[in-house]
Amino acid sequence: MRAVIPYKKENAKSRLSPVLSREEREQFVEFMLKDVIWCLKEAGVKDIDILTTSKYDALYELGVNFVLDERDLNDSVNNYLKKTDQPVLIIMADVPLTRPKHIKEIISSEEDVVIVPGKGGGTNILFIRKPAGFHVCYYGMSFRNHCTIVKDMKQSLKIYDSFLLSTDIDEPQDIVEIILHGHGFSLKYALDKFELESGKARVKLVNHHEYKSNKGL
Amino acid sequence: MRAVIPYKKENAKSRLSPVLSREEREQFVEFMLKDVIWCLKEAGVKDIDILTTSKYDALYELGVNFVLDERDLNDSVNNYLKKTDQPVLIIMADVPLTRPKHIKEIISSEEDVVIVPGKGGGTNILFIRKPAGFHVCYYGMSFRNHCTIVKDMKQSLKIYDSFLLSTDIDEPQDIVEIILHGHGFSLKYALDKFELESGKARVKLVNHHEYKSNKGL
Repeated sequence: MRAVIPYKKENAKSRLSPVLSREEREQFVEFMLKDVIWCLKEAGVKDIDILTTSKYDALYELGVNFVLDERDLNDSVNNYLKKTDQPVLIIMADVPLTRPKHIKEIISSEEDVVIVPGKGGGTNILFIRKPAGFHVCYYGMSFRNHCTIVKDMKQSLKIYDSFLLSTDIDEPQDIVEIILHGHGFSLKYALDKFELESGKARVKLVNHHEYKSNKGL
Repeated sequence: MRAVIPYKKENAKSRLSPVLSREEREQFVEFMLKDVIWCLKEAGVKDIDILTTSKYDALYELGVNFVLDERDLNDSVNNYLKKTDQPVLIIMADVPLTRPKHIKEIISSEEDVVIVPGKGGGTNILFIRKPAGFHVCYYGMSFRNHCTIVKDMKQSLKIYDSFLLSTDIDEPQDIVEIILHGHGFSLKYALDKFELESGKARVKLVNHHEYKSNKGL
């Protein structure tokens, strides 16, 4: 089997702009990617491809391959699938709460396809045993798209239910979950930048300055 | 064992006010509660207590008990725990994505305590084998509070990782998950009121009127 991680660094994660500068967002996505790569390796996944538009020197030391493709997410992943006859695990670069145990469970599932839903209709991980004839469709309600594709191909499907894996980091509030449930580089980065503030509702993310000011410090 | 569901109907779920009127929110929480009760019964839980400040006629037919307590969530649950010597499953009334399989897994866990984290630092389900000496602390980062309480009592702990159970319905965006992954009364209610709209980011909730207007219909 192979794992492929679609990855974009330049001006990544624009919805985090309210709390992180462009440079910080580019650092942060690299840390999240490193956590995902670490996790795959710990789970025994040896062949890891980074599907991207540029090579990144900082990742060479991690022993991953680069697959360069200028096209959009769907086209580049579909082209990748066409060229592969091994089982493929497609994992997003922004799911740093993933642990090795999750990966082990997913790749040892008996079903033809495993879909890990993300918050808000997304697909955070997709494991495809027989990539021939399979295609992805990440835009729109990709969770529904992928369920339909599997059904139309008459393949067996497992929906893998995990809070940690459902948490892709797109919006400031998502960083709360890294601080509460994360590990590795992304946890360290989040703790360097932010604090949590709690009341009766869901915990909120604030920076160190806001935290002190709210506490009257 | 017993299950206890803290429940408040009057002017419930104020953070859903942007999309539902007070009357609608009161209907909606009752539907979510009914889904949770159905789920417990399907999982074989026979003794179900609704911990609340008033009796609700519409629930009598479901064969549940009412435990009336005017105090706040922490005090009323802690008082309930003091009076019980059986294992207790505390489940929130606003987790309608719960399925019987989850409940069966949680109550058959070997650990002394099972905590099901909710989004944003919450605790959506808590299973306590030996309630003697245990206390809950739902305000603030209740997930962290409960982990600390278990550790201080030197009890064994399982953190149950589920996207469906982590989804408590507090904010309009949470209703998206009911439409995508829900069932029962709450799914029917959500579909009666809302549509999903998708682009490249997370799926958004809109009402039927907005949906038509956005589509130019």
